[in-house]
Amino acid sequence: VKHLYKLYYWPGIQGRGEFVRLALEDAGVPYLDVARQRGKGHGVSELHRLMRGRALTIPPFAPPFLGVGRLVIAQTANILHYLAPRHGLVPSAEAARLHAHQLQLTIADLATEGHDTHHPISSTLYYEEQQEEARRRAPLFRGVRLPLFLGYFERVLQRQGGRWLLGTRCSYVDLSMFQVLAWLDYAFPIAMKGLAPRIPRLLSLRKRVAARPRIAAYLASPRRLPFNEDDLFRHYPALDDR
Amino acid sequence: VKHLYKLYYWPGIQGRGEFVRLALEDAGVPYLDVARQRGKGHGVSELHRLMRGRALTIPPFAPPFLGVGRLVIAQTANILHYLAPRHGLVPSAEAARLHAHQLQLTIADLATEGHDTHHPISSTLYYEEQQEEARRRAPLFRGVRLPLFLGYFERVLQRQGGRWLLGTRCSYVDLSMFQVLAWLDYAFPIAMKGLAPRIPRLLSLRKRVAARPRIAAYLASPRRLPFNEDDLFRHYPALDDR
Repeated sequence: VKHLYKLYYWPGIQGRGEFVRLALEDAGVPYLDVARQRGKGHGVSELHRLMRGRALTIPPFAPPFLGVGRLVIAQTANILHYLAPRHGLVPSAEAARLHAHQLQLTIADLATEGHDTHHPISSTLYYEEQQEEARRRAPLFRGVRLPLFLGYFERVLQRQGGRWLLGTRCSYVDLSMFQVLAWLDYAFPIAMKGLAPRIPRLLSLRKRVAARPRIAAYLASPRRLPFNEDDLFRHYPALDDR
Repeated sequence: VKHLYKLYYWPGIQGRGEFVRLALEDAGVPYLDVARQRGKGHGVSELHRLMRGRALTIPPFAPPFLGVGRLVIAQTANILHYLAPRHGLVPSAEAARLHAHQLQLTIADLATEGHDTHHPISSTLYYEEQQEEARRRAPLFRGVRLPLFLGYFERVLQRQGGRWLLGTRCSYVDLSMFQVLAWLDYAFPIAMKGLAPRIPRLLSLRKRVAARPRIAAYLASPRRLPFNEDDLFRHYPALDDR
């Protein structure tokens, strides 16, 4: 019996749920975006019920999580590691799957460090309450950590032949790389313009992913929410100056 | 052909490498801690060679990484996910392996947030250069995020029967939970004393892990490095006051 995938993520932002959406969209797999639906068994209350209630013996700590029949699994990279081999989103050899997961977890680290530029003190405070510290963190992210991460991925891409991060076909890692590059460009346009000459392969990978028919259709659909200042990456000009 | 595992991690600290060491030690699997050895093909230079050199098509971004013959994989949770089913460190059912990985990634998130209490601005600066911001971040970690994480793991443990985080036997996730609790107790003794009444099951799990014969032998050996102020968790009294 095939189950309809249920994706649980905060509505209103792309967030970490977007890594999962891009994978499902590219594979052409139908899914239900639970918190964006209304009615019983849907909406944000359903996320809270699964996280805080007694329904699950291993509840998720935080969204995104994926429901497959009675199985509910959390942690973005874990979800992708589960989905990918089932939908042709990763090469089948074990070494390639391990390397895909390794790269995905490194993308997750980059996303967290990027997020923390606007929340260096705590996720429990608003940006406005930690603006001063954010202005100290952001230049070190833009100037040191971001070039380190992107230089790494550019090097991997080069060694893989320059087209995809894992061999000869697009994998879920390429979709996630696209997402991070899109976010970075939104949040740090000045910094990214400065870095562009050093990451030609990544920028061309980004275009290649955006041009994939199902991804292009998704990006043009209302399912793709606009970037905004509640999301993981936010455009605060003060954090992208100089 | 069975290969001798090679663990690559910074010498001098427990760090994220410790999660892998505890798994290998508990399973009684021999391994070579490459950076702690001397001579050609060993030492910290070997870590740098694999990360920065041309030897690998998918190099690691950062330690720890594990060498198994010609395969080199990075990202702590990925390494454990690979090792665990091969050495009886996780139940064999797929759902249990996915949940183990989910919990491990959540432990990794907690470890990163804990580390960032003393490095809120950047890992590229010294603690002394971000002490003021650290004093703002630490109380929010101790007072809000830490109780949230530990309350979550306590709840999971309770629902699993109170003994192990995944069913009826000790898994690698329990070993990692032990490690995080030991670190937290070292870094935040006052905060942890205050939290103790709310996490009785976790504290008893910690003792249960420490009493496992191979873990006890490891902890008493010179292979277990002492806690110190270069490590992921550090004891700075200023970050544990009130």
